[in-house]
Amino acid sequence: MDFLEQVKWNSDGLAPAIAQDAETGRILMLAWMNREALALSAKEQRAVYWSRSRQALWRKGESSGHVQHIREIRLDCDADAIVLQVEQVGGIACHTGRESCFYQRLEGDRWVTVEAPRKDAREIYG
Amino acid sequence: MDFLEQVKWNSDGLAPAIAQDAETGRILMLAWMNREALALSAKEQRAVYWSRSRQALWRKGESSGHVQHIREIRLDCDADAIVLQVEQVGGIACHTGRESCFYQRLEGDRWVTVEAPRKDAREIYG
Repeated sequence: MDFLEQVKWNSDGLAPAIAQDAETGRILMLAWMNREALALSAKEQRAVYWSRSRQALWRKGESSGHVQHIREIRLDCDADAIVLQVEQVGGIACHTGRESCFYQRLEGDRWVTVEAPRKDAREIYG
Repeated sequence: MDFLEQVKWNSDGLAPAIAQDAETGRILMLAWMNREALALSAKEQRAVYWSRSRQALWRKGESSGHVQHIREIRLDCDADAIVLQVEQVGGIACHTGRESCFYQRLEGDRWVTVEAPRKDAREIYG
């Protein structure tokens, strides 16, 4: 479909996709999509990414139940980055059990973990 | 410095950096950083990116005046993506003259431009 062709996929056929909590505005995670992941995300209105480590489609929440329902999908000016506005089921996006993957803050010259996991990470991977 | 080594730079020595408006939570843009860009951003507390098209450091706002003052720098769980909380001088991050680069919304199977430029783009590039 045209909208898939209009994205400027990188040399691996991927584009970065940022998931943002539609209610709070918090940035939850950055993952990657290929054509199929974006097509499925648009069709199903839930986030489907491409796992670079597993080299497979990754239906967010398929094992944890922590699905991301999509309210809106946006593309940037040079068509190579995507933002998803999502409703994060369970309020936890990160496989470490935290709301957001961005829980390390730069303080001086150190990355400091500034949030504790809310749940045991083993419960919620995926 | 250690904090630079802890980032998992990709095969080009880069990591994606998301700039988010510290006041509104709006995602303004996604750009790229290399070690030097992150080191300078941390030191100067203003956003410095790596321009992949120009293959050069890109001090955001150096030609437009639309500097991004950094309030906070975060790193994600797998240490390969960065979020900057910024104060966007002039309220315009995008070279097209818009507040955010993410002004195209997926509606059905079309990307629709849902925001008009606030200023002539030629005035504000950079």
